[in-house]
Amino acid sequence: MRGRLPATPPRKAAMTRPSIEFWFEFASTYSYLSAMRLPDAARGAGLEVVWRPFLLGPILAEQGWSGSPFSVLPVKGAYMWRDVERRAARLGLGFRRPDPFPQNGLLAARVATAALGAEAEAAVAFVQKVYLAQFDAGRDISDPAVIAECASAAGLSDGAVEAAQDPGIKQALRESTEEARGRGMFGAPSFAVRGELFWGDDRLEDALEHAKAP
Amino acid sequence: MRGRLPATPPRKAAMTRPSIEFWFEFASTYSYLSAMRLPDAARGAGLEVVWRPFLLGPILAEQGWSGSPFSVLPVKGAYMWRDVERRAARLGLGFRRPDPFPQNGLLAARVATAALGAEAEAAVAFVQKVYLAQFDAGRDISDPAVIAECASAAGLSDGAVEAAQDPGIKQALRESTEEARGRGMFGAPSFAVRGELFWGDDRLEDALEHAKAP
Repeated sequence: MRGRLPATPPRKAAMTRPSIEFWFEFASTYSYLSAMRLPDAARGAGLEVVWRPFLLGPILAEQGWSGSPFSVLPVKGAYMWRDVERRAARLGLGFRRPDPFPQNGLLAARVATAALGAEAEAAVAFVQKVYLAQFDAGRDISDPAVIAECASAAGLSDGAVEAAQDPGIKQALRESTEEARGRGMFGAPSFAVRGELFWGDDRLEDALEHAKAP
Repeated sequence: MRGRLPATPPRKAAMTRPSIEFWFEFASTYSYLSAMRLPDAARGAGLEVVWRPFLLGPILAEQGWSGSPFSVLPVKGAYMWRDVERRAARLGLGFRRPDPFPQNGLLAARVATAALGAEAEAAVAFVQKVYLAQFDAGRDISDPAVIAECASAAGLSDGAVEAAQDPGIKQALRESTEEARGRGMFGAPSFAVRGELFWGDDRLEDALEHAKAP
């Protein structure tokens, strides 16, 4: 039951320390890169991270995309795979192309939404384990068994996966996605810092700098 | 007449020194950022720049875009304007939103194609002056008078603008665009370095690093 409330990430902490909001989609390759390097980068910058899972699919669909832009535009997709591979290598991260792609990250996003409000440290570990399962180990994160393994390995409390099926959690995730759309987000990862939006893993440094600026 | 031949940029130089190919579209905001900072960055890295103007429009049209992705997707466009404004400020560059956008860079691309083969140093100055006219001074680069001014200010030889109407130059630009498409480019700027493609002003550092790698 601990995983059920509050349904949204803790905001008070974000208001008492300089912080950076990290908006991520589990199916997103570049979100993987950011999720893995953000904790150290933010710590180095003296910033708190507010982890904000959301679903990019509904936002892209509203813009007329019938699927991932990387699938709809094969030439762009081919470039993306090589680009992520190169950048993962620079970060010392494994990378393989998930099959299928994009994966369905709905369950993972619900579990993260629930857990971030209840047990933040383990929730961050869960997020990273899901990304590694997908992009390093090549597993299918739409499989509840994979998510359950990630939850257990991350030290989430028993019942954290089941708690994600709570209507309040489902609604909270929908509201996060609506909030992302309302705040002008159209891709993942996105960083929101002091009224500015930064899109893409390659804008993390700009976002950190803006967060630290006087 | 000097501006008319050869129709393609000098390739021999590119083969005798480590080099970076810079593929740019005059209407592209992020190409502006790269065009302004690339000469110093490449010099600092000991690299030669091979300047490759091309037209992005035909490539995007083939992918089903009915215009600039930034116009077709207003939310993405709104982000782009703010992002370029921020990044221009970091580079100490002026930036204003051209009206109309995107502009028609065909004449500029033809003049650049002709001049890069004939008088490379002045041609690079011309490229930068066209970008500044458009994105700093807010002028319309589809206006032949603006292009003539840029050519003159850059020190291009008399007749350089007229030379751009030569059928061989028009064909050379078409072939460059075909080459870009054939090599997997789908956006501007793109950097081609030792068999690797890097897309976007924010990949310039990666491209330089790859060019220098043993």
